[in-house]
Amino acid sequence: MIRVGINGYGTIGKRVADAVTAQPDMELVGVAKTRPNFEADTAARKGYPLYAAIPDRAGAFDAAGIRIAGEVTELVGASDVIVDTCPSGIGAQNRAMYEAYQTPAIFQGGEDADVADGSFVARANYDSVRDLEYVRVVSCNTTGLSRLLAPLREEYGVRKARATLVRRGGDPGQSDRGPINDILPDPVEIPSHHGPDVKTIFPELDIDTMGMKVPATMMHMHGVNVTLESEPTAEEVRELLEAESRLFLIPEEADIDGAGKLKEYALDAGRPRGDLWENCIWGRSISVERGDLYLFQAIHQESDVVPENVDAIRALCSDVDADESIARTDESMGVGFESRF
Amino acid sequence: MIRVGINGYGTIGKRVADAVTAQPDMELVGVAKTRPNFEADTAARKGYPLYAAIPDRAGAFDAAGIRIAGEVTELVGASDVIVDTCPSGIGAQNRAMYEAYQTPAIFQGGEDADVADGSFVARANYDSVRDLEYVRVVSCNTTGLSRLLAPLREEYGVRKARATLVRRGGDPGQSDRGPINDILPDPVEIPSHHGPDVKTIFPELDIDTMGMKVPATMMHMHGVNVTLESEPTAEEVRELLEAESRLFLIPEEADIDGAGKLKEYALDAGRPRGDLWENCIWGRSISVERGDLYLFQAIHQESDVVPENVDAIRALCSDVDADESIARTDESMGVGFESRF
Repeated sequence: MIRVGINGYGTIGKRVADAVTAQPDMELVGVAKTRPNFEADTAARKGYPLYAAIPDRAGAFDAAGIRIAGEVTELVGASDVIVDTCPSGIGAQNRAMYEAYQTPAIFQGGEDADVADGSFVARANYDSVRDLEYVRVVSCNTTGLSRLLAPLREEYGVRKARATLVRRGGDPGQSDRGPINDILPDPVEIPSHHGPDVKTIFPELDIDTMGMKVPATMMHMHGVNVTLESEPTAEEVRELLEAESRLFLIPEEADIDGAGKLKEYALDAGRPRGDLWENCIWGRSISVERGDLYLFQAIHQESDVVPENVDAIRALCSDVDADESIARTDESMGVGFESRF
Repeated sequence: MIRVGINGYGTIGKRVADAVTAQPDMELVGVAKTRPNFEADTAARKGYPLYAAIPDRAGAFDAAGIRIAGEVTELVGASDVIVDTCPSGIGAQNRAMYEAYQTPAIFQGGEDADVADGSFVARANYDSVRDLEYVRVVSCNTTGLSRLLAPLREEYGVRKARATLVRRGGDPGQSDRGPINDILPDPVEIPSHHGPDVKTIFPELDIDTMGMKVPATMMHMHGVNVTLESEPTAEEVRELLEAESRLFLIPEEADIDGAGKLKEYALDAGRPRGDLWENCIWGRSISVERGDLYLFQAIHQESDVVPENVDAIRALCSDVDADESIARTDESMGVGFESRF
């Protein structure tokens, strides 16, 4: 059993905690949290041992009637690996603590690439991080692009990739974010940082990305163009992508036009929090002409990296190989929509 | 004096009426409207002769206390040219009426290309429509792309253009449109119809476009990639585009991050309805690497075609050449932001 501690219990942390709990080869040591908010309350109700992420705040948990198992350093000391899901930038500050306890750690994509010794997407580069102690699971958008590009690179070769990332302004709970009724170039500079981030996974890849921000909260939408080195048909590309467990090809008959219906489909299916762990690709959008592939994919910013974190744990702390880890993660979490149709 | 009639007095019609009134070489014969709504009220207050677009509705105008000058056929008969700004599809039905009165007509981009004998963007193909009687001013998005591509084609040559069009869900007054809190591939099929529409202006151009629809009402946003045949610097491209009167290069110091501030800038400048007749291009977004140009531009769907309609009138009904017409239109309407900085 791999003993997993989670430092940070927000959008990603709480999902990783549930996913780790579902793994037969992992044990959740506990989760660390800074404040006794609604998420801490849920953790307590689920019976997850709760550690105070900031020492002198333990009193606040007491006041809220939430029992604390200890301080975050105890969690770090008791774990084989820490998944750091703290807000962007805090992970980098935490690395020294993990090093002091000689505990390997997995950081998130909000951190700069140099927070860790390697970046990770299970389908793309699982083996490359196996000897490392500090690894970064890349951001939701980078994960989504990498998962799509991995099979395309292997099967056809990629000459150049271009993506326009139309990003949700904030998560559903981030009520202080914008924009309202506007479409912002974000960042205004081109290429955006997303392209270079994908290159932490595929260093040789030629990719340019542009970002925008719009008044939506549910998912990101990518308009993707990939100039391939060979010239498959759209149908061949569709079949290639359909075979990938973390790519969901939305069938035309599903009558799904956007993130709203995708989320509703996931909720109807009983998925936790209505999560969509897969890239959601409109099958009908896939078009290829003279090696120029285009498609639309929606990316659930809150959850697509969750199975990646589970696989990263195995890559760092076990001998399980990539295919086996992905299969175990998918099976235990319920990743993959194909069989439902 | 060119006698101009306008059939349809909605978003585009009312703006074209004002723009025609501002031209020293044009006379507004009148405008035709189906219903005595708030726009008809404004037309009456401005003293524009109002014609009933549907014969048996004249009584409704009487009831609303709005005086009618006659029926639309009288307007068509009394005009040298009709600008048809009726809702999409109605223009095609109207063509027979214009033919019956041997009155040339200008249609809008909501109509199929075959409604007319040629499509029009002043900067791109003014001369090509001069012997025609029926011309279509292309849509706001096609106009915006064509204006941008015209100087790039002339100066550098264009190998391939790609654009992701993130479109406003509806105009500010279209309260029955969506989406709310979603990002929709729209159309899901790729390439979208916008690329072929640009080819009505540049038949030889290789262009692919993708469309999305988002919860915003103010302007469209284009993420544009143009693979050029030569390799200018970003600064050279910036200077080239800055010299175009209908391209507004948003300077960094203006501190404009989206459509909201663009509109506010136009309103502060006292522009009618806060209109932005120019493509609004973020100067800072312009980047070029090995002939691959990227930029963001915002397109005001309600107004960018208005100066084009004015120029189309001159192309059909006068000997004025393209440069002179564009200059007159710009001068009389106040197109061009450059001098304000």
